[in-house]
Amino acid sequence: MTADQLQLIILPAGVIAILFALWLARDVLARDTGTAEMESVAGTIYEGAIAFIRSQYSTIGLLALVGAVLIAALITFFETEDVADTAIYGLDLGWRTGLAFLVGAACSMASGIIGMYISVKSNVRTAAAARRSLVEAVQVAMRGGAVSGFLVVALSLLGVYLSFVAFGGIDRPSEAPFLIVGYGFGASFVALFAQLGGGIYTKAADVGSDLVGKVEAGIPEDDPRNAGVIADLVGDNVGDCAGRGADLFESTAAENIGAMILGVAVYAVAAAAGWPNPEAWIFFPLVVRAFGLLSTIIAIFFVRGREDEDPMNMLNRGYWVTTILSVLALALVTNVMMQTPGQTGANGIDTWIYFFGCGIVGLATSVVFVYITQYYTAGSYRPVREIAEASKTGPATNIISGTAVGFETTFVTAVSIGIALFASHWLGSQAGLEGEGGRDVGGIFGTAVATMGMLMTTAYILAMDTFGPITDNAGGIAEFSRAEKGAREITDRLDAVGNTTKALTKGYAIASASLAAFLLFSAYIDKVNLIQANRGGELLESVDLANVNVFIAALIGAMLVYFFSSLAIRAVGTTAQSIIVEVRRQFREMPGIMDYTTRPDYARVVDITTRAALRQMVAPGLVAVATPVVVGVLLGYQAVAGLLMVGTIAGVMLATVLNNGGGAWDNAKKYIESGQLKDADGNVLGKGTPAHAAAVVGDTVGDPFKDTAGPSLHVLVKLLATITLVLAPLFIR
Amino acid sequence: MTADQLQLIILPAGVIAILFALWLARDVLARDTGTAEMESVAGTIYEGAIAFIRSQYSTIGLLALVGAVLIAALITFFETEDVADTAIYGLDLGWRTGLAFLVGAACSMASGIIGMYISVKSNVRTAAAARRSLVEAVQVAMRGGAVSGFLVVALSLLGVYLSFVAFGGIDRPSEAPFLIVGYGFGASFVALFAQLGGGIYTKAADVGSDLVGKVEAGIPEDDPRNAGVIADLVGDNVGDCAGRGADLFESTAAENIGAMILGVAVYAVAAAAGWPNPEAWIFFPLVVRAFGLLSTIIAIFFVRGREDEDPMNMLNRGYWVTTILSVLALALVTNVMMQTPGQTGANGIDTWIYFFGCGIVGLATSVVFVYITQYYTAGSYRPVREIAEASKTGPATNIISGTAVGFETTFVTAVSIGIALFASHWLGSQAGLEGEGGRDVGGIFGTAVATMGMLMTTAYILAMDTFGPITDNAGGIAEFSRAEKGAREITDRLDAVGNTTKALTKGYAIASASLAAFLLFSAYIDKVNLIQANRGGELLESVDLANVNVFIAALIGAMLVYFFSSLAIRAVGTTAQSIIVEVRRQFREMPGIMDYTTRPDYARVVDITTRAALRQMVAPGLVAVATPVVVGVLLGYQAVAGLLMVGTIAGVMLATVLNNGGGAWDNAKKYIESGQLKDADGNVLGKGTPAHAAAVVGDTVGDPFKDTAGPSLHVLVKLLATITLVLAPLFIR
Repeated sequence: MTADQLQLIILPAGVIAILFALWLARDVLARDTGTAEMESVAGTIYEGAIAFIRSQYSTIGLLALVGAVLIAALITFFETEDVADTAIYGLDLGWRTGLAFLVGAACSMASGIIGMYISVKSNVRTAAAARRSLVEAVQVAMRGGAVSGFLVVALSLLGVYLSFVAFGGIDRPSEAPFLIVGYGFGASFVALFAQLGGGIYTKAADVGSDLVGKVEAGIPEDDPRNAGVIADLVGDNVGDCAGRGADLFESTAAENIGAMILGVAVYAVAAAAGWPNPEAWIFFPLVVRAFGLLSTIIAIFFVRGREDEDPMNMLNRGYWVTTILSVLALALVTNVMMQTPGQTGANGIDTWIYFFGCGIVGLATSVVFVYITQYYTAGSYRPVREIAEASKTGPATNIISGTAVGFETTFVTAVSIGIALFASHWLGSQAGLEGEGGRDVGGIFGTAVATMGMLMTTAYILAMDTFGPITDNAGGIAEFSRAEKGAREITDRLDAVGNTTKALTKGYAIASASLAAFLLFSAYIDKVNLIQANRGGELLESVDLANVNVFIAALIGAMLVYFFSSLAIRAVGTTAQSIIVEVRRQFREMPGIMDYTTRPDYARVVDITTRAALRQMVAPGLVAVATPVVVGVLLGYQAVAGLLMVGTIAGVMLATVLNNGGGAWDNAKKYIESGQLKDADGNVLGKGTPAHAAAVVGDTVGDPFKDTAGPSLHVLVKLLATITLVLAPLFIR
Repeated sequence: MTADQLQLIILPAGVIAILFALWLARDVLARDTGTAEMESVAGTIYEGAIAFIRSQYSTIGLLALVGAVLIAALITFFETEDVADTAIYGLDLGWRTGLAFLVGAACSMASGIIGMYISVKSNVRTAAAARRSLVEAVQVAMRGGAVSGFLVVALSLLGVYLSFVAFGGIDRPSEAPFLIVGYGFGASFVALFAQLGGGIYTKAADVGSDLVGKVEAGIPEDDPRNAGVIADLVGDNVGDCAGRGADLFESTAAENIGAMILGVAVYAVAAAAGWPNPEAWIFFPLVVRAFGLLSTIIAIFFVRGREDEDPMNMLNRGYWVTTILSVLALALVTNVMMQTPGQTGANGIDTWIYFFGCGIVGLATSVVFVYITQYYTAGSYRPVREIAEASKTGPATNIISGTAVGFETTFVTAVSIGIALFASHWLGSQAGLEGEGGRDVGGIFGTAVATMGMLMTTAYILAMDTFGPITDNAGGIAEFSRAEKGAREITDRLDAVGNTTKALTKGYAIASASLAAFLLFSAYIDKVNLIQANRGGELLESVDLANVNVFIAALIGAMLVYFFSSLAIRAVGTTAQSIIVEVRRQFREMPGIMDYTTRPDYARVVDITTRAALRQMVAPGLVAVATPVVVGVLLGYQAVAGLLMVGTIAGVMLATVLNNGGGAWDNAKKYIESGQLKDADGNVLGKGTPAHAAAVVGDTVGDPFKDTAGPSLHVLVKLLATITLVLAPLFIR
């Protein structure tokens, strides 16, 4: 097989994945929708979710339109004049970038909307299936989640590929990657607002209805008397599902483009050496991604098991199938596409073997992160037990202990990422790719291959992630519709598994963001140097931290992640307050609610939450977009690289703290609720004890950390990369 | 007046300051020690504090001795061989650095011990004075605090100056600064363990005795029935007083040395241009510091006022006198020492005027930080009110809101520091100092001058800071000895002022650490290049973030600040647990405590706290020392610069969050206690309400943030700088 033939797989793989997603969607939609009560709740959730998404995506669409025009105008103004005569910039870059931005934004929105539509339809079907069988319920939830997974990855793959082809990638493969960065920026732009709006919505509804229902009125979670409960269930869909989908859509898009840009350097080496198919190095990321999709399709059929089996095992089975198939595919792709006739790497080992090793490093890193996250957030290990123990002396020690755990998680995170980067860079640098003047181009490409390896399993991971809100909703529907005990037991088990898979995805998203950061940073430098070479300016040889402007920008980058998180966290608080006020009002003015004679006005709470979340998402979003632009224009292109790099590092660390701290608090509460905490005399300290109350405080504090600020930081980090990549011409004077 | 004459002020100024400190000490010690009850409590506090300091400083002394031998051996091993023939390294650097390290460590310990001794003697005298007059009480507390302030700054100044002279600074001024970096390292080493041990002690005692006394047993703060109360009072002295003293001792030492190293580059320019007294540029930091001391001596006499005046006004009066005198002194010193005959800066303006401007930028920055801290932590402004409002819905929203406020404070902090750096660098670069090949050496020196300007008021700031624990203790003694109501009202007022001054010092320490970071970072690069020039190696032209090793090291630097804080915070939790267990045991086994018939065993709690705090300070301390060494040895000297720089930025940001968040939580509680929070109907929500209970949770959470982890991070940041500066030869291969 030749590299040329292998490249042909991209388009069919993307199309097959979309068709498969449609088949899964039909399969899910054809299933039983349960009792009339279930249908009624599900209908209310559906309406609320669609109403929010409609408002939210109208706002985002409008912002994206303004953004596209601004980008096109700015780039036309700053770029065309002085570089119009060069090969690549001879193309009018302004409108092309603006158009790519819009296409990226549209694809992201489409995959978000469709994925969420299926997820809101899957929840009631999962609840209905739970009345019959655990295995069937797992399958419905997982297939519903997989619709999102496949759509996100396939649309991102096809979008990048088709933009690449449309912008002349077949004839001029080494130039086109720079033209499509707008696609990645469009995707990040949508992701930022989708994650912020959804994250604020879901946690404001969660915190608000818990505080007013569980704490003040003393009624259980998801109780139909709580006017905020539907908003809470809607929130699971719009935050965890649509938000995370947009997040990973942009990850895959931006990282594909970044890796292609790094491939350009190897392309030059390959073309100079006369190796066959030099463009294979540029197509490589897309081909790897295509095989990742195909592996995941097969794996979905392995999600099965016995009725008495731990549902997590069923999901893990599929994950391991995806991983093993990915390893095999990686071996094939590197072997075929990375042929360097007449040259080997260090020690006479073939070049492709080194890069195969890089891909394995990436896959291994994703597995490591899955286990790290489990250790820090699952109930059976030291960190969660420590927080549960600290709850005995009240909420203050619970918070102190959870903060210490959250901070601690940065250690393994940073060390694992450091090792992965070092290993893949070292392997790549041994591969024997020398650019002009003996400069090693393999090292950085090695980190790109590792990132691609890691991202091969994205579709599966995203399916597991969406499994979370679907089962969470299924549990809520079962509770709300007072379904039979057996069904509720099954949805409870699935809900617990869903909490774990949601946490895993965050670990995975963080790891991929960190690896990608280095790759996108290198792509930025390549882009700046391309512009400078065209303009005859000074090349950016290094980003010098000893330069005062770089230092100031780095300081601002580190500040940005805190300031942005502050706005996001405060937005949850503010929105939750308005929910509390409204639910209290309903309790007061509609006394029939408490004895079930009056139905609370759910729609009004949904409406209030929608409007507040949309209003609150604008400020942090604009801060994130404006800061790199202002710093770049004031302090220049080298300084903005400092902001990008240090902002990324600081963002990854803070997101780790917020995600894992929040997850650990959540599970410390569950640990106590499951009766595992005992006092000195061996008595169980369970629900209703002061220790449990303290753990509830920690859980509530962790909510906006882990589901609003943390995930939004993933997006922020990648937005910084794409925005600087696209707007680089503005920063060079 | 000539520069030569001005340099003569260093020694006398240091000696005068020490004599003045002794006079203040005599003045304080000669005062009335109050009632027999007061003397008895004070005696118990004194014993506990001295016992802790004795144990702690024995441990630290031992660690320092081991450190000194290791440093001497390592440097001898890595350095002497290949550079023995050069001018500077012809001196045997190994034992000199080890000796300088020991002297620095000893001076730091001496100023800590003496300062704390006076502070523990001042508390009861302040309480006694409060029985007569507010003004007298303010004066006793401020003078007691000033003993620390003067000793710290004067010993640091004299230590640096005398080491400089002893290592040949008079004959070879451009080489000696590099020889005395060990002094700064020794000071940071002691400061790290002093701040960690003291910080853990004070907050464990505070949290532990509050939880078991106020929350569990329902008795007031500082109640004599609580066996932990003496440990709490001891903690104020060993943490806030001895810890902060060591922190600022090392700041002034490290920043003096760093600024002198940067002065070497200007020395070369001045010598080449034939300007008079080129060594003046190296002595400049010490001369400025000497004038700062003299200004503070005068200012102490302006701390006076009327009986009905706000005590904060009296302290502010002195602060403004110090600031104004510092401006005048700065004008004199820059005018005399920065003469560049035959050359002017940009626009024909004299060189010295530009640097005078840099110094003003520094002084202005310190004033700005004083006001920023007040805004974020004082009760009358939006942030604290916001947290107090959020307490109405319980501890969870209190914590969420406080976190948002803490995160938010990074914004003004980073922007102010960025502006100060940019302005002082720009002014310096306009001053017309051109080194070899037209390279600007004025910009970086400008940032050094700004740092020196900022640090002119250190002695006064430190006096205000130590005022805090003295008045806090005075309040405790008054409460404990059941003093008359009038005296207790006065000590309460002083205690509130002391809380503000403590917060201000932290803002000041952060700002100076950030400015100094850039200065010390530049000094590191100068040192590496000196070594490389001697060895004929490659010069370090830039610290390139695009280099994968630098990126990995930067990631580890950002991680280190979280991991270190995690260890420090957890240490407080663990130690507090053992206090709680012991106090509970005493309540249980000695039933006479509650009706005052049995005296609790205070000494046992003090003893338990001492041992636990000492045990717990070792792990974070060693992590802080080992990480830069391991990274430097594994990844090289460029990578370690990345760790230093990004670790500093991340540390400054996290310390800002922890200090200001903690301060805001503390004052939100006080805001509620003072009856300023009202419900929707205008009823006061004061002590005993659920809102107050929620605010107490926030206050307790903030304790280890603002008094253990935050201040320890200041020290960590500067330790990173001194350790890399000293051990640079190890990292170059």
